[in-house]
Amino acid sequence: MDLETLTSRIEPADTRAAAATQRLLDGKTKPPGSLGRLEELAVRLASIYGDTRYATAPRAVIVMAADHGVACRGVSAYPQAVTAQMVHNFAAGGAAINVLARQMAARTVIVDIGVAGTNDWPGSVRRCTVAAGTADLSAGPAMSVVEARAAIGAGAAIVAELVREGVRVVATGEMGIGNTTAAAALTAVFAARAAAAVTGRGTGIDDPGLARKIAVVEQALARNRPSAERPLEALAAVGGFEIAGLVGVILGAAAERVAVVLDGFITGAAALVAVTIAPQARDYLIASHRSAEPGHRAALGALALDPLFDLGLRLGEGTGAMLAMPLLDAAGAILREMASFESAGVSGPSGGG
Amino acid sequence: MDLETLTSRIEPADTRAAAATQRLLDGKTKPPGSLGRLEELAVRLASIYGDTRYATAPRAVIVMAADHGVACRGVSAYPQAVTAQMVHNFAAGGAAINVLARQMAARTVIVDIGVAGTNDWPGSVRRCTVAAGTADLSAGPAMSVVEARAAIGAGAAIVAELVREGVRVVATGEMGIGNTTAAAALTAVFAARAAAAVTGRGTGIDDPGLARKIAVVEQALARNRPSAERPLEALAAVGGFEIAGLVGVILGAAAERVAVVLDGFITGAAALVAVTIAPQARDYLIASHRSAEPGHRAALGALALDPLFDLGLRLGEGTGAMLAMPLLDAAGAILREMASFESAGVSGPSGGG
Repeated sequence: MDLETLTSRIEPADTRAAAATQRLLDGKTKPPGSLGRLEELAVRLASIYGDTRYATAPRAVIVMAADHGVACRGVSAYPQAVTAQMVHNFAAGGAAINVLARQMAARTVIVDIGVAGTNDWPGSVRRCTVAAGTADLSAGPAMSVVEARAAIGAGAAIVAELVREGVRVVATGEMGIGNTTAAAALTAVFAARAAAAVTGRGTGIDDPGLARKIAVVEQALARNRPSAERPLEALAAVGGFEIAGLVGVILGAAAERVAVVLDGFITGAAALVAVTIAPQARDYLIASHRSAEPGHRAALGALALDPLFDLGLRLGEGTGAMLAMPLLDAAGAILREMASFESAGVSGPSGGG
Repeated sequence: MDLETLTSRIEPADTRAAAATQRLLDGKTKPPGSLGRLEELAVRLASIYGDTRYATAPRAVIVMAADHGVACRGVSAYPQAVTAQMVHNFAAGGAAINVLARQMAARTVIVDIGVAGTNDWPGSVRRCTVAAGTADLSAGPAMSVVEARAAIGAGAAIVAELVREGVRVVATGEMGIGNTTAAAALTAVFAARAAAAVTGRGTGIDDPGLARKIAVVEQALARNRPSAERPLEALAAVGGFEIAGLVGVILGAAAERVAVVLDGFITGAAALVAVTIAPQARDYLIASHRSAEPGHRAALGALALDPLFDLGLRLGEGTGAMLAMPLLDAAGAILREMASFESAGVSGPSGGG
């Protein structure tokens, strides 16, 4: 499906289901509003699914992996080879995302969408390789617009397939040495911030490394002149294959009317691009956590999303999104299982102040 | 067991297990520290259990219910009868805590430690009634010191029994119309704050109700002159039976070396009393969430505990504590299941900045 057809299929979420959910919650045996953001989440999910009763399982985390030409500029604490090594680790089930996905009963879908080198993946890794890593975004466009469209299409196709198989919630994950540099450049463009304000330490670079990384982001912006008014071109210029793939995941989930749970800084950058392309996609986003990466706050602000928690995570892979799953389940269970004042014979407010 | 014997059994948590856990985490396939507060939680739990491998199940939430004489002063939006009605709702499985405890695979232990009236409870409700509700704390002591000791002893005995049955994590819950007034008075005493700074809307009182509630807390403090230097007397003077019972739960859990997960404002007030009686009990506390009640921030500050999340909850019952359970599980799973750089053949930092 081409991008224009995909975005044309995204409809706003259901405000009537949202209102019905709030009424249902107000009749439950608790002071009105006392479950705070869990109630907000229940309302949001009901509006996504168009029903006060909705399922938050089965679910899947889609981990898109890709390499970045900019890694040669010394912007990461780890060598580029770690991307492919971690894909093997994902396939073997030993990474943090595997552990947390198992805990949260989510399927892990590992996608090579642009890993460098010739890789002999195990069968569980999907090969959707657009190219063997991007070009150095500080020297020119990271990829072509044709490649960006291909990555978006691949992401959307994976979601469509998962939904056909019954998946009701999609979580976004990623792996790619150098990808906080691309995410910083995209956040600078789409949240309209200076490079220095949205560039952080990523995997843990030192002070000289951080200064170098900021300079690289500034060069990327100066060289490519990306603009939020041409989002696809901006994504191609300073993005990454996994980020473009996640743009497709987000647009695909919105088109399929399933909730898409964002992880941290990288997936937040993908969300910024996605909602700029198709603003109605925002209705389908759930922000799980606020990352320790400074740019994530700016991205969430521009998305007008309030994350559910802040645990100082900065690992990516989809780990933060996994930790939000029990909250989605809990919000649904409250709606389905809790007694009402009437059914339980509990008195309402006495009006006594 | 008397209180002095109980507190004498509480030992500091195991700093060697904590250090071993941090080393283990640093060898896992992720940038050091990148799982943020999940790593901190893993370290804390290992220090509680004295082992890098620990179980966070089976678990139980102890919901202590009691009435408050001060309810007659119009400090709650709900009539006093709601306490007993909600105990029936707990027994029938229809309250928020039942729904969330089921989600989190926790056993719900419902305890009448001081509900007013003659109640015909179903068999699942434990009857540990110290008295049929406290006296009005704004007119004199809420209970006697003998009663406070009895309630603490009952809470500690329940934990000891649960631990004998295999429970490895205890969560604190409560129900009692009027109990945010008692918790505000205790927080004022033990966190050394003015009544107005720690008194909130509880179940949702209006502005005149809030002004009245603050005045009632001020009267309670003026009349009883409670002091943190005599914590048991202060608890008796301005506490509640469920709060005293929870002091026992906390001290009992610490004595048994199991983690005790705090819920919101009421259980935070109980924790303040418990750690004033036995400072080493603090090592066993996990703060789940920051409540919307303003006094909870002061209580957590005085406890030097940083909650895991803030979802604007203000329901109590143990609901926030339940939402923390998947984080405890996740922290343990990361330690047990994640690959190391060595085992997965993943390169460490390149040192390239």
